[in-house]
Amino acid sequence: MTDAARTVSAEQTLVEETLLNNVLRSFERAEDPRLKQIMQSLVSHAHQFVRDVRLTETEWQKAIEFLTAVGHITDDRRQEFILLSDVLGVSSQTINVNNAAIPGATEATVFGPFFVDGSPEIELGGDMSGGANGEPCWVEGTIKDLDGNPVPAARIEVWEADEDGLYDVQYGDDRVACRAHLYTDENGEYHFWGLTPTPYPIPHDGPVGKMLEATGRSPMRASHLHFMVTAPGLRTLVTHIFVDGDDLLKHDTVFGVKQSLVKLFEMQAPGTATPDGRDLGDAAWSRVRFDIVVAPEQGRSAATQAA
Amino acid sequence: MTDAARTVSAEQTLVEETLLNNVLRSFERAEDPRLKQIMQSLVSHAHQFVRDVRLTETEWQKAIEFLTAVGHITDDRRQEFILLSDVLGVSSQTINVNNAAIPGATEATVFGPFFVDGSPEIELGGDMSGGANGEPCWVEGTIKDLDGNPVPAARIEVWEADEDGLYDVQYGDDRVACRAHLYTDENGEYHFWGLTPTPYPIPHDGPVGKMLEATGRSPMRASHLHFMVTAPGLRTLVTHIFVDGDDLLKHDTVFGVKQSLVKLFEMQAPGTATPDGRDLGDAAWSRVRFDIVVAPEQGRSAATQAA
Repeated sequence: MTDAARTVSAEQTLVEETLLNNVLRSFERAEDPRLKQIMQSLVSHAHQFVRDVRLTETEWQKAIEFLTAVGHITDDRRQEFILLSDVLGVSSQTINVNNAAIPGATEATVFGPFFVDGSPEIELGGDMSGGANGEPCWVEGTIKDLDGNPVPAARIEVWEADEDGLYDVQYGDDRVACRAHLYTDENGEYHFWGLTPTPYPIPHDGPVGKMLEATGRSPMRASHLHFMVTAPGLRTLVTHIFVDGDDLLKHDTVFGVKQSLVKLFEMQAPGTATPDGRDLGDAAWSRVRFDIVVAPEQGRSAATQAA
Repeated sequence: MTDAARTVSAEQTLVEETLLNNVLRSFERAEDPRLKQIMQSLVSHAHQFVRDVRLTETEWQKAIEFLTAVGHITDDRRQEFILLSDVLGVSSQTINVNNAAIPGATEATVFGPFFVDGSPEIELGGDMSGGANGEPCWVEGTIKDLDGNPVPAARIEVWEADEDGLYDVQYGDDRVACRAHLYTDENGEYHFWGLTPTPYPIPHDGPVGKMLEATGRSPMRASHLHFMVTAPGLRTLVTHIFVDGDDLLKHDTVFGVKQSLVKLFEMQAPGTATPDGRDLGDAAWSRVRFDIVVAPEQGRSAATQAA
């Protein structure tokens, strides 16, 4: 409780609690018990927030205007609500609640607003960069289940920003670059060419960016490459890998960094032979290994079973 | 704390609290202490909500989709975020926090989503209905300050739905009806013709309506007539008056009803002489008195001073 809230009179407290109870009661007839639980908890926290900070009507109006602006900038290619959830750590907390505490499984992190359905398929060893600018990066690894069995034909979606810090969908043309999907081979192995991840700001020309600026926060994300792994009977894994040594690892604006996801990207001097014999001319490149362990589908609730 | 939250392991709790603390810390550099307080309280409650209900990723995704739909249906004439705030009682609680506990002052209630700037001015005794369907209603009263002094030239904005339950802006044409402003005379008195308020549903063809339906709630509002009173040196009063005897007084879907705002609308048989001699033919009409007391501007913080 804030200082302001502590000085509220008993009479005023009664008025506020009576209203809250009326609102909670209005959801009593919900047939779906889970929906009822969610709405009642949401209402309790929303009211407690208003009461704790003694929200003024002007501030409420600003909040309405802010949410309206978030809604209006959101379209098929820009999801400012996800961005808002991300920078408040709500996305990351939701992922914690659902994905944590399965010993041995690769940790999940935020989905982010830039995934797009319908990425092109590439062969194993293919290039997902689609000609975008950046330093080539050889990415390889295996996908296994919790028992150590390789997972063949697992679908891997990968997506990332280019060297200029932009995802393809941010260009506003119809380009498709730095996103693809591929499948593990019969040994659960995968490898492909992407780009060495570079740090970039989240889109900060909208209301979320204004909020970050007003609160003295940086819009920068730590460098990363997105993965989503799906396979029958296994839990979908949404995660990134991060670049060891990146200064932004401690200040990622969406709170996505987990130590287990920080990987060594080995820098290769120009002319170093590539794993697949690809001729990169006089370009430097990098390589990284990401071995993934995916939990079974029923592992979802482990976080709450581990009491 | 919910049953689900009680079974969370100590290790998992540490993960969740570490994240929350990181997010709170990210706002430490905010220069505006009030903004910092609001963001940190918002983050705390949002994270606690996610943790209490153990929000699933599918539910988080649905919440994003819901907010996106709320944003997309919102335009200059429809404000679904205000509607959402209203049906969760957040608007009403904000009003409580800011307007309560000033003994003697008229109580405030929700603003609602249908106020539009630039209403036509009417003379004292004029008709604000603009030809809309409904039973004529003579509305009269005085505006005084807390010391009992009449407030001359106070601006009164009034707006309401027509007999079909719709505000002018809901018709999607450019009609202006059932909204106007007028000024009190030198004695602080006002009177005008409006329509006897009738119950109506809030707009429920959008995402907020779907949420009400899914949770077994009615979209109906108790019958009411909106007022906003402004005068130099006095606190802006946003309120309604409600109709005594209305069955919906206990189930108003936006939690706007306060007992002090329930007024007797005296029904007048056809042919009863009108206060201003207006000939209503064979139409029945009603009359209501609403005497308003407005607090001084500095009264805003009384709710928190009354410890």
